Amino acid sequence: MIAEILCVGTELLMGQVLNTNAQFLSRRLSALGVSQYHQTVVGDNAERLEEAYRTALSRSDVIITTGGLGPTVDDITKRVAAKVAGKPLVVRPEAEAMVRERFAQYHREMTLNNVSQAMFTEDTQLLLNPNGTAPGAIVPMGEGKVVIHLPGPPSEMRPMFVDQVEPWLRARSGCVLVSRYIRIFGMGESMVDDRLRDLELGGNPTLSPYCSTGEVMLRATASAGTAAKAEALLEPVVREVCTRLGDVVYAVEEDDTGSLARSAVEALKRRGWTVATCESLTGGLIASTMVEVPGASEVVRGGLVTYQSVAKTMLAGVPADMIEKYNVVSAEVAAAMATGVRERLDVDIAVSATGLAGPGGGTEEIPVGTVFLGIATRGGVRTIPLHLSGSRARIRELSMKHALDAVRRTVDKE
Amino acid sequence: MIAEILCVGTELLMGQVLNTNAQFLSRRLSALGVSQYHQTVVGDNAERLEEAYRTALSRSDVIITTGGLGPTVDDITKRVAAKVAGKPLVVRPEAEAMVRERFAQYHREMTLNNVSQAMFTEDTQLLLNPNGTAPGAIVPMGEGKVVIHLPGPPSEMRPMFVDQVEPWLRARSGCVLVSRYIRIFGMGESMVDDRLRDLELGGNPTLSPYCSTGEVMLRATASAGTAAKAEALLEPVVREVCTRLGDVVYAVEEDDTGSLARSAVEALKRRGWTVATCESLTGGLIASTMVEVPGASEVVRGGLVTYQSVAKTMLAGVPADMIEKYNVVSAEVAAAMATGVRERLDVDIAVSATGLAGPGGGTEEIPVGTVFLGIATRGGVRTIPLHLSGSRARIRELSMKHALDAVRRTVDKE
Repeated sequence: MIAEILCVGTELLMGQVLNTNAQFLSRRLSALGVSQYHQTVVGDNAERLEEAYRTALSRSDVIITTGGLGPTVDDITKRVAAKVAGKPLVVRPEAEAMVRERFAQYHREMTLNNVSQAMFTEDTQLLLNPNGTAPGAIVPMGEGKVVIHLPGPPSEMRPMFVDQVEPWLRARSGCVLVSRYIRIFGMGESMVDDRLRDLELGGNPTLSPYCSTGEVMLRATASAGTAAKAEALLEPVVREVCTRLGDVVYAVEEDDTGSLARSAVEALKRRGWTVATCESLTGGLIASTMVEVPGASEVVRGGLVTYQSVAKTMLAGVPADMIEKYNVVSAEVAAAMATGVRERLDVDIAVSATGLAGPGGGTEEIPVGTVFLGIATRGGVRTIPLHLSGSRARIRELSMKHALDAVRRTVDKE
Repeated sequence: MIAEILCVGTELLMGQVLNTNAQFLSRRLSALGVSQYHQTVVGDNAERLEEAYRTALSRSDVIITTGGLGPTVDDITKRVAAKVAGKPLVVRPEAEAMVRERFAQYHREMTLNNVSQAMFTEDTQLLLNPNGTAPGAIVPMGEGKVVIHLPGPPSEMRPMFVDQVEPWLRARSGCVLVSRYIRIFGMGESMVDDRLRDLELGGNPTLSPYCSTGEVMLRATASAGTAAKAEALLEPVVREVCTRLGDVVYAVEEDDTGSLARSAVEALKRRGWTVATCESLTGGLIASTMVEVPGASEVVRGGLVTYQSVAKTMLAGVPADMIEKYNVVSAEVAAAMATGVRERLDVDIAVSATGLAGPGGGTEEIPVGTVFLGIATRGGVRTIPLHLSGSRARIRELSMKHALDAVRRTVDKE
């Protein structure tokens, strides 16, 4: 089965909206084992959209559209697909009921033009939209091919795809795919690739790397006739990957929603420890990233943002003459920051970060990218020097990730 | 002039990389007045890429590619374009010098396969890559059409486009475009649209809205024979927009790099004020977002992350019986948090946020999305109640933006 993503909307051509839908869909399709060779964006123009449909249908089996299902004259995605299918759009009573229900729920009046959201060809399979007014649709286009219409807003598109389209695709593919998501921090993509190259040759399970700042996520996907058989193929490969990569693997999960912050918060919960932060160059980013995790309030007590030197003294009790003597970017100050906040909030573990994010201010002795982390527990304090590079934003983000990784490792091992 | 973006890379089809390049390029092209009707993504496959080139050349004048300029066999972007142009690739000595210089700078050895990065057709105009090894290129394709090759990594692609391709496009377009970026917080897109609808009819200047969480950015672009004439067209429209929208406009700038945080930091600098934060549900996000602004250290002294109730008492001195009496999500607690940190760090202004980000924990009295901000200055303290909706991440982000907006307004007006 070959699929192809066709995003419709002039706002995409103008760069007014970042096309996260294409990435979301291609990632999910890839995990389902569905091949894709093209992605296309066209504006709200009937002639160009018709041509895009015909081109896509000539080379793919499933065309997934996003956007253009609303009630305005610009919303032409369904109308043009129906024209290409050679069938008229009619008001489908089940669809009209869906739209009416959503308007009632939002306490909004359903004006006449909104009836267009309930218009589909007679043979269209409707998709419920629990998060918006426009239903989605699976439209037969002849020769076993279909166009699948999804709404443009990601909050409507994503659950519709996961809950309704994925089961439909899975039922048609005839085989079961099972995936594991292996999360890695502290080893670059090329090194990961080097260590695993021979494992990637087999083809089942497949191993696909997904990179983000300082991190690699490996998706391992096995395909078989049953879930149990797929699991059996998957398990030894996942175990081998973990053995070869060692403790840079911080999580192995059944979905791709994990993060260093979640792993750190989960490690703290398992251990029953509380945590606090004392942040200079990260300025609250470490604490804020942990707080992103629902339920973090069980373990994250709080922290200090000690951005100016004077704040390090006023809030964390770092002696002014220590800052003078060793420099504010030093292991000594990082240790004092961590110890200071640990005592003030009476927590089991505290992490601190001081460093130079740039762009200005670097010297030969302390270049931009020099960072010291401090880790204080009830047993003592240690420091970690980092030598990072890149933009101010990257240096701050990498410092945050190293800090979360240090918390996770310390909680798990100490 | 019609342009079209063609992104090359199997990693895009697999969803391994978010295609921010397409948005960046379409936004910049749109600001240059260059029309675009299609965007395409294809994998590292010569046959499909050749077809994509031919299709794009049949309907557009300038094809901008991203990705596939590296030294591996997967990097086919240049080779296939040369085949379509009907010209051989040769090692261009100027290009080889560029590549050698970059390898020397990175202290890496230049292996033989890297020479492929210096291969172009004889008539190709080279583009310097100050941030990576692969030079870019403007390749004549006949009939006045060109293919412009840019590298895939955004840190290499963006400066190459802005510094070298934009001047080239501007020189060919024959008219001067001047833009202003009007940043709006506190008014939704449809309301902005309602108030400005008649201004948008003229066509010169054009007004294009770009939306992000809680914010609208309007780009006003005028086109004329000279910059002075374009400015003269632009100025009255920008003034009229600001008059109609009032104080929800927080910045009018010549580029699109602004943010609420930058405006808040600039307001603080103008006034010579220092700022501190005391954050509960935002957990450090307000401080961290201000610290993102280079030079923030002049005004951002530091702050407290008081996530658990006990931290509000231990760090900010909020009385435990006040939390008991009024609830931790209350105007009283927000005021005490702001006052507490303002006094502890002896700053001119402090902002606090306490609220319920969810997903769980809501009650009839205090539903998820209830947030109180506190603003303390040397003159006193006031509070701002917010009723937000959406995901945990959205409620936290909107709280942060409201806090920064409150700082900016208070500093400017008080």
